[in-house]
Amino acid sequence: MAEHSVTVENTLQTLLNDKKYSTIRDILVTMNPADIAAVFAGVEPEKLPLLFRLLPKELAAESFVEMESEEQEALIKGISDKELRQVMDELYVDDAVDIVEEMPANVVQRILAQADPEMRKEINEILQYPENSAGSVMTTEYVKLTPGMTVGDAILRIRRTGVDKETIYTCYVLENRLLVGTVSVKSLLLAPSDLQSIDSIMETNLITVTTHTDQEEVAQMMSKYNLLAIPVVDGDNRMVGIVTFDDAMDVIEEETTEDMEIMAGMTPSDKTYLRSSPFDLFKHRIPWLALLMISATFTGMIISSFEEKLAAMVCLTAFIPMLMDTGGNSGSQSSVTVIRALSLGELEFSDLGKVIWKEIRTALICGAVLGALCVGKVMLVDHLFMGTEGVDLTVALTVGLTLSVTVLCAKLVGCTLPMLAKKLGFDPAVMASPFITTIVDALSLLVYFGLATALLHL
Amino acid sequence: MAEHSVTVENTLQTLLNDKKYSTIRDILVTMNPADIAAVFAGVEPEKLPLLFRLLPKELAAESFVEMESEEQEALIKGISDKELRQVMDELYVDDAVDIVEEMPANVVQRILAQADPEMRKEINEILQYPENSAGSVMTTEYVKLTPGMTVGDAILRIRRTGVDKETIYTCYVLENRLLVGTVSVKSLLLAPSDLQSIDSIMETNLITVTTHTDQEEVAQMMSKYNLLAIPVVDGDNRMVGIVTFDDAMDVIEEETTEDMEIMAGMTPSDKTYLRSSPFDLFKHRIPWLALLMISATFTGMIISSFEEKLAAMVCLTAFIPMLMDTGGNSGSQSSVTVIRALSLGELEFSDLGKVIWKEIRTALICGAVLGALCVGKVMLVDHLFMGTEGVDLTVALTVGLTLSVTVLCAKLVGCTLPMLAKKLGFDPAVMASPFITTIVDALSLLVYFGLATALLHL
Repeated sequence: MAEHSVTVENTLQTLLNDKKYSTIRDILVTMNPADIAAVFAGVEPEKLPLLFRLLPKELAAESFVEMESEEQEALIKGISDKELRQVMDELYVDDAVDIVEEMPANVVQRILAQADPEMRKEINEILQYPENSAGSVMTTEYVKLTPGMTVGDAILRIRRTGVDKETIYTCYVLENRLLVGTVSVKSLLLAPSDLQSIDSIMETNLITVTTHTDQEEVAQMMSKYNLLAIPVVDGDNRMVGIVTFDDAMDVIEEETTEDMEIMAGMTPSDKTYLRSSPFDLFKHRIPWLALLMISATFTGMIISSFEEKLAAMVCLTAFIPMLMDTGGNSGSQSSVTVIRALSLGELEFSDLGKVIWKEIRTALICGAVLGALCVGKVMLVDHLFMGTEGVDLTVALTVGLTLSVTVLCAKLVGCTLPMLAKKLGFDPAVMASPFITTIVDALSLLVYFGLATALLHL
Repeated sequence: MAEHSVTVENTLQTLLNDKKYSTIRDILVTMNPADIAAVFAGVEPEKLPLLFRLLPKELAAESFVEMESEEQEALIKGISDKELRQVMDELYVDDAVDIVEEMPANVVQRILAQADPEMRKEINEILQYPENSAGSVMTTEYVKLTPGMTVGDAILRIRRTGVDKETIYTCYVLENRLLVGTVSVKSLLLAPSDLQSIDSIMETNLITVTTHTDQEEVAQMMSKYNLLAIPVVDGDNRMVGIVTFDDAMDVIEEETTEDMEIMAGMTPSDKTYLRSSPFDLFKHRIPWLALLMISATFTGMIISSFEEKLAAMVCLTAFIPMLMDTGGNSGSQSSVTVIRALSLGELEFSDLGKVIWKEIRTALICGAVLGALCVGKVMLVDHLFMGTEGVDLTVALTVGLTLSVTVLCAKLVGCTLPMLAKKLGFDPAVMASPFITTIVDALSLLVYFGLATALLHL
């Protein structure tokens, strides 16, 4: 994709310089909105309105939706009120809301002024729902039917009103604003007769979300039930909108990126990597780095308190990185597995006992194998091959045993913390590797020095 | 969801024991296939056929598709050939392929024997495509139109053949088996006249994938272009099938889980967490743990070689965990960011220069701030407050400077390795935290001991 856009971009740049506008237009109309947006991202902001005016009305609006907020803002500032109104007329309400959310106040005012009164009202309503809720990502444009209609009536209704709807493929049957059923266009088209009544073919086994349902849960329900669109109802069970599959896919992508960022110890960012300045990246990375650096004071204190004994047997120091790293890796395996299962809805807090029991057994096998491997490695490499001073079988056994115990502790901490975080209403992803590494480091050092004191009579 | 299923499960178990089959049936028919599958997962395998027979034919097949392979296998073994044939008749080809791929050979033979000849042929064709390719996830059941048809003809064709198609909402216009356009049902329904010809309303600006395109790229294209279904063409550009949005959502979920597992140093698993035995988990976790444990020998060797100097200034040991952890955290921040951007297609190998330059600048800011913080912390906590022997301003500066340099190295390694891996055809996710931690550990120790030797005159 990216390579394709770059090439077109160069061609367009040359054509722009040569003022070959009709050729540019001919190229742009063969392209998809997402690709046009990618090309526009590489054009100087002051030339954007010029290019934008070359696009047919509908394609212009569709491409506008796909652009990043920087280009959108530059465009809005460069086009006339009339042109802005034409774009607004083509937009779906949920896309308009997405744009409004990213713009500075003065641009928002201009956008709202150019939206027709009904859309303005709907934008304002959607803006009131909490961020990341179903209400905030839904659209209010869907096909409404009533139970008394016939299949023929329904098709007629779709033909008359469908052009403005984000999807026509699932229609919603309402009675006094309450959702009583859904009808797919497939079942309308395949109905044996146009005279059949809607209530005889509608699906009454309904899957709905409320305006306050978290967007991630909405997307997961759509994936689980293979839904093209999911109806959103308010507290009184009245239907207020739908979330469509394309928004669900965006939500999944967004939430996955966010999870990965949090799991790697970063605060989540809205900007793509290439659009983030080094200072943006710094702001998202420094909080956890600083916090974890400071909290590593504890591991330092543990080592300090053992300093004298360590001075008596310096060879023990060499195994510290291996013990800490293996502990950290074991812990993050468990935490990432549990975090993912929690976010896919495969695990609940009530499974805590099962999870701990499973991790204990897994840790015992992993710990035994790693411990044995470690004893063998220490005896072969450090004792026989390198002849490191002070390393003998007792030291090897101490290190191996510490490793086994560390793996057990790490896996228990790794599986428990994310589940507790979820229970307490935090994002389990926060409990991923960096955080758990710090705890497991301290634990592994305590175990190491404890066992060393006991077994090596330090 | 899960809580809901558990409750229904208990009720059903009681009803099963009491042999209240008609009540069970009444409950099951109000449920969605995905929920029925979840309930069935909790029932003893030998009772599955009994429950399954209570379901109406279509719901039975839809629920069957949603089940995990264990239940599917138990069911296939427990039902008659005739019942199996009824299920097969209701299945879409791509779902049948998914099932066949998970079953042991003897069950596969029985399934294929009960599929009608055309489906058997299609299953066998799809099975030949490489795993994770578009060909292996596509379905061959889509609506075919020809350019000469009118809107009325097309609607008639959909009405006659649509019942067996996985989606009717996008229809494909073929000429000599080549794809020449797509028509949405929306445009058919909204067409001004039934007599309009298909080639006048079809979309000719086509987005296609080939049978060998990676499934992750397919899903990302569908998400990028907001497609309900994407056409799959063979090497000669002939249309062979479509991938639908529900499969794309499954692919995204699957690939994300796989990425997260690999990034946490595990080999990917097909089974959900609660279905994996401790031995399964062990098998997926031990390879990287063992490899990384062994490779930590290098860090041990670096420390060993510095042992004498370390014995002369034991207080330096206490800072090793902090330096290693902060380095590891910095590196994994960069690697995870780059891995995610690569997998979303936001970055290409050609961006390597840009990425390195961005990371250098970010690392300089992060390194400066962390280094300064660290010097302050060491002086305040270790020197003033705890009065640790040997810790003075020179030591604090040595540790702080090491930290800054480590952050720079870590971020460079973290951003470069995933991009190189991608270039060399490996999965960039392999280059995530555990791997990078091991490299960064060695680097940070080398920097630490180098700077200590120079600045502290050891």
